[in-house]
Amino acid sequence: MSEVIKMEAIISSYENMEYLMSPRSVAIIGCSEKNMGGVALSNLLNMGYEGEIYPVHPKNNTVYGLRCYSSISELPDGVECAVIALKSTRVKQTLKELNEKNVKAAVILASGFAEVNEEGQKEQQEISQLLKENGIAACGPNCLGLINVNEMTPLYSADAPSSLIQGEVGLVSHSGSACIALMSSGSDLGFSYVISAGNEVGITTADYFRFLIEDEKTNIVVGVLESIKNPKEMSEVAELARKKGKPIIILKVGKSETGEKTALSHTGAIIGSSHLHEAFLKQNGFIEVSSYDEIITTTALLSKHRLNLPKNNGIGVMAISGGQLALSCDIAESAGLQIPDIEEKTKEDLAVVLPEYATISNPLDGTSDALFNTEIYKKCVIALTNDPNIDLLAICQDATSGLDSSQSALYQNVARAIADVSKSIKKPIVVFTHVSGGLDAPIHRILNSADIPLLQGAHASMKAIKKYIDYANSMDQLSQRKKSYDQDNRESLDLYISHFKGTSLSENESKRVLSRYEIPVTAEKVASKVEEARDYATEIGFPVAMKIDSPDILHKTEAKAVKLSISEDQKVISSFSEIMENAKKFQPDARINGVLIQEMVPKGIETIVAVKNDPLYGHYVTLGIGGTLVEMIKDFSIRILPIDQQDAYEMIHELKYSEIFKGYRGSKKADIDELAHVILKLSNLAIDHKNYFNEIEINPLVVLEEGRGVKAVDALITINR
Amino acid sequence: MSEVIKMEAIISSYENMEYLMSPRSVAIIGCSEKNMGGVALSNLLNMGYEGEIYPVHPKNNTVYGLRCYSSISELPDGVECAVIALKSTRVKQTLKELNEKNVKAAVILASGFAEVNEEGQKEQQEISQLLKENGIAACGPNCLGLINVNEMTPLYSADAPSSLIQGEVGLVSHSGSACIALMSSGSDLGFSYVISAGNEVGITTADYFRFLIEDEKTNIVVGVLESIKNPKEMSEVAELARKKGKPIIILKVGKSETGEKTALSHTGAIIGSSHLHEAFLKQNGFIEVSSYDEIITTTALLSKHRLNLPKNNGIGVMAISGGQLALSCDIAESAGLQIPDIEEKTKEDLAVVLPEYATISNPLDGTSDALFNTEIYKKCVIALTNDPNIDLLAICQDATSGLDSSQSALYQNVARAIADVSKSIKKPIVVFTHVSGGLDAPIHRILNSADIPLLQGAHASMKAIKKYIDYANSMDQLSQRKKSYDQDNRESLDLYISHFKGTSLSENESKRVLSRYEIPVTAEKVASKVEEARDYATEIGFPVAMKIDSPDILHKTEAKAVKLSISEDQKVISSFSEIMENAKKFQPDARINGVLIQEMVPKGIETIVAVKNDPLYGHYVTLGIGGTLVEMIKDFSIRILPIDQQDAYEMIHELKYSEIFKGYRGSKKADIDELAHVILKLSNLAIDHKNYFNEIEINPLVVLEEGRGVKAVDALITINR
Repeated sequence: MSEVIKMEAIISSYENMEYLMSPRSVAIIGCSEKNMGGVALSNLLNMGYEGEIYPVHPKNNTVYGLRCYSSISELPDGVECAVIALKSTRVKQTLKELNEKNVKAAVILASGFAEVNEEGQKEQQEISQLLKENGIAACGPNCLGLINVNEMTPLYSADAPSSLIQGEVGLVSHSGSACIALMSSGSDLGFSYVISAGNEVGITTADYFRFLIEDEKTNIVVGVLESIKNPKEMSEVAELARKKGKPIIILKVGKSETGEKTALSHTGAIIGSSHLHEAFLKQNGFIEVSSYDEIITTTALLSKHRLNLPKNNGIGVMAISGGQLALSCDIAESAGLQIPDIEEKTKEDLAVVLPEYATISNPLDGTSDALFNTEIYKKCVIALTNDPNIDLLAICQDATSGLDSSQSALYQNVARAIADVSKSIKKPIVVFTHVSGGLDAPIHRILNSADIPLLQGAHASMKAIKKYIDYANSMDQLSQRKKSYDQDNRESLDLYISHFKGTSLSENESKRVLSRYEIPVTAEKVASKVEEARDYATEIGFPVAMKIDSPDILHKTEAKAVKLSISEDQKVISSFSEIMENAKKFQPDARINGVLIQEMVPKGIETIVAVKNDPLYGHYVTLGIGGTLVEMIKDFSIRILPIDQQDAYEMIHELKYSEIFKGYRGSKKADIDELAHVILKLSNLAIDHKNYFNEIEINPLVVLEEGRGVKAVDALITINR
Repeated sequence: MSEVIKMEAIISSYENMEYLMSPRSVAIIGCSEKNMGGVALSNLLNMGYEGEIYPVHPKNNTVYGLRCYSSISELPDGVECAVIALKSTRVKQTLKELNEKNVKAAVILASGFAEVNEEGQKEQQEISQLLKENGIAACGPNCLGLINVNEMTPLYSADAPSSLIQGEVGLVSHSGSACIALMSSGSDLGFSYVISAGNEVGITTADYFRFLIEDEKTNIVVGVLESIKNPKEMSEVAELARKKGKPIIILKVGKSETGEKTALSHTGAIIGSSHLHEAFLKQNGFIEVSSYDEIITTTALLSKHRLNLPKNNGIGVMAISGGQLALSCDIAESAGLQIPDIEEKTKEDLAVVLPEYATISNPLDGTSDALFNTEIYKKCVIALTNDPNIDLLAICQDATSGLDSSQSALYQNVARAIADVSKSIKKPIVVFTHVSGGLDAPIHRILNSADIPLLQGAHASMKAIKKYIDYANSMDQLSQRKKSYDQDNRESLDLYISHFKGTSLSENESKRVLSRYEIPVTAEKVASKVEEARDYATEIGFPVAMKIDSPDILHKTEAKAVKLSISEDQKVISSFSEIMENAKKFQPDARINGVLIQEMVPKGIETIVAVKNDPLYGHYVTLGIGGTLVEMIKDFSIRILPIDQQDAYEMIHELKYSEIFKGYRGSKKADIDELAHVILKLSNLAIDHKNYFNEIEINPLVVLEEGRGVKAVDALITINR
């Protein structure tokens, strides 16, 4: 039946979002002066909402002087949105009544749903269905509601702060308290919308994001998210944001051990879900931050420079104090920023204006000369930003709220110099303070009106600059990336795969699958008889490795069914029987294909390349450094599939110890190109046949010297049945 | 001559420090209304200095209404301190004149000394000598001077901020701008002294620290240091501070790549000076922070709880918002804090007061019930702090300057509840906000008067808590540590060492030295003839390693003079000649002791244990994980000598990948005890004979399974000649 009704609902919940985000009339269901409904009402009154307001309560005649309706049925026609301030058990019935009145949007404040217990989950599910069937755009439940700040329309159940600033930031948060904290931050963060999304029974985070990106007054979107629910839609939204040049900043909450523990149980040994979240956000060009402070600094930076992205990664650092300058560099480098040398030409330009004792370099100490003579200051800024190695100039300048007026006056001169000179400079300039206890208002005003961001706190500022540069790189790369995976080269393995029984393939079977995608594997043959073993060993060339080949014995070493570096006939013969016997002893009912006779691969860098399947994100590929230290150093990079060749290279370079491939300790450079090819081939294999394969692991994939390729030494494929 | 004069100077510069730190009369040399001297004067006037002030200037009759003296000779007797506001070239002569007037303290503001060029360095050296000989206590040069905040006595050449707060923090900074920034932070950081120390020509950082620790009004000392000049005195000061329970917080500036590059050139390959600084600070119980913000948060925390140190490392985390709580835990764990489980009893206590849907755990969400009913809040705090696993309670609470009055009023109730309940709680309680843009004054006041610190910014707060807990641990450990190294067990090696020529010992000679200190080395003998080689191999047992033994060939592998895993007589014979020939070819004039016949050591964990000599800190020991990845993973810990057994264990546990010793991937637990013993023995060997040994490196020291000990497989000692 629901299918039928769905068909009839001409307008979807998303399409009705305008009634939620910008309603011209609001009913408050369960509104008295002593409850949340009353707070919602007083917010509407205090913020000067100009639409019609209809309080509904069975017992009140008026609320805050407004006529109160005794029931929903009594409401006039054409109410666009309802704030439901009733307890959880009454929400469903209320929605039905509202639907009869043709109300197309609702804010559900009550908690007591999916976050509490199974019963609540069921109730939430039913409400979700109801909303879908009737195309109602609903926010919540378990939320504070939302505020359309630009139109001063609060549908909001905590006190809307009078200090709320209008601006270009659209905030979506699972946690209501993040909304409160960010609206009350004391910074100049200005909002278009503040949305406490709650359990997302109707409108989802992705929906809000899409709406905000389409919204003319919103230029930056911020999400404070406890979970990421629909990666596909989020990806689409990210692409839309990219096209519109509107950055999306995400603070993913719950990444610590406790959260990770839970995540680990369903994804595998090395990687927890938080790593997948990170990979997902990064791959899609979201900006991930780690604190409210970083939201504020990153937003402040982007609000001035989002359309003026740096071309490269070099930052210039300048101050009028050597001590603060050195500390700035310490903190910049700890945030991963690069402070390149400047060119001779730049040094000459600077030497002309600065006193003899000044050190001419990047970082640059303008000395007190630049403080007391701002013409010198300006020339320093021009010289630095003219340097081709510098893509962004970060200026360290005290500007805290505690500044004395005389000190402030002095620094205002500096701010004015920066503001003046910035007009003719195309590269982004960022000013930051070391201390983060609030800003000096006059200095802030001067810089603000010249569209120069003034950030607080050296750590948060440097992190913000790093995020900004990463964002610029990401936008650049993603714009060059082909959008979807091209399946033209898909290898038909269907028939081949259909031969396999059980849920795992033997080592040799796994490698045969890999070979079909041109992944280099060891030269090897399965010997079912001892004579074959001897012949194969001669054919392959000594020394050889010998291993049991069975789809049922996955832990070959444990079964004592592996022999390495066998260098003569006699040993091949004795090992053959030994391996067969041990395998049968280890698992008497195992299907055994025979003994694998395999070339010994020369020494190289051991890596692990694997594809696994995550219930949320689907198949993802992992590259890790192998060998005995592997699990301990936890050095891996991941990407959600599909990927392209550039991703594969990035995965390699992203490893903590990627220098190992660059010719480490006298060893030659490793064959990174072939490694990148295999990562891509394996990923394509997995996508082409994602319904078949659950997990594919090459461990180790040995990376040889440049020009000598790579080789899959062991492999394991498990299959969905 | 200077020696003689020194003897006669009855009172040292340090003893005269009271005239610098608390002068009853001040002369300002070079004082007019338009120069730095004038600023210094107006600071004295503005802050209401009650002593006598004597401006000196050849051309002025009065300055700011005060009589101006035309020369120093004209000054009355008994002037206690002089601020010298003249340029660098005139400082030395001025000091001589002041000395004739028996002025015992001076502030030298001018720059242009050691920081500029060699000439300046020489001038500074002469001034240093002059000050020492006459026992003058001098601050600077190249500084802003100092402010005795408690007595409102500024000897200070930048505008002293009117917002300056009196308090218990003594600040010493090489950089004047750090003084300005911290005095103008807008936080409630209150100072006893603010000292811009400059080039430390007279009074050193260690002197200031000692003075401040002895000062009754100073309880916390903060140093913003660009260099650490006299480790020995700094160690002594640290011990004094420890005894008095006064923490010293250090921000070491200049730790980034640029600074490190310079440092690397004189200390060795793996470790830069910044690691030695860190080791030094840690070993002595200094608290090292990384930003001005951390100075402010750590100081705010210590000012309330420095005498109430936590007994252990477990922190409880509480909030009234699930979202902020989860984020707090993310940030706490990223700062290295431990959030332990609470006991069943605690959970029962909490279950009684909290609503059914609440999650009873550490971290604890008090839910909105605790917000609206602060009796519930109090009970939560009591239950958590009663739990034996919790040593400190960190409470997350919005309290930013941007809070609306109604929201603030609500949170003031929470603050009052915490303040009330804290009176009966012995464990430290810390309240922090996520956002760091300034604090809500009423909430701050409530908590402050209950001696509960209110910290700003989640990252800075969590770092401060971590520093505080580390400090508590450090105080605990250092108090149990024996103070000095006991040299009773010194082995006499003098005669033995005197045999060696040149600057290096051969492998075998090095190991013989190690053996004298009972460091286990490989079974080995030096064969000078091929017959000996064969006999020794049989004696030691096959397989053996064979290496050239020569004090002149340090790179044996490069010389092709190493053969491993030799398992038969015939190979011993052929290898002997081969090694001898290769060695002679490699370096014809090398002194050759013969070929080392050495046992092959079973597989274990390869480590490097080495002692090197730093020009500033002297001998220090390094423990590193060895093997091919060693330089890349840069996993090492260091201690400046002497150390004790506990240090050695801490070094092991401090390694990033120390779990490798705990029985990694099926391998058995490694013999940590023996490793710790060798670290200590090697350290003692180095100290006992520090004049002989420049560097001692055991690489690798193989750590075997527990109970099987360790073995030095290769070793190299270089000698001072």
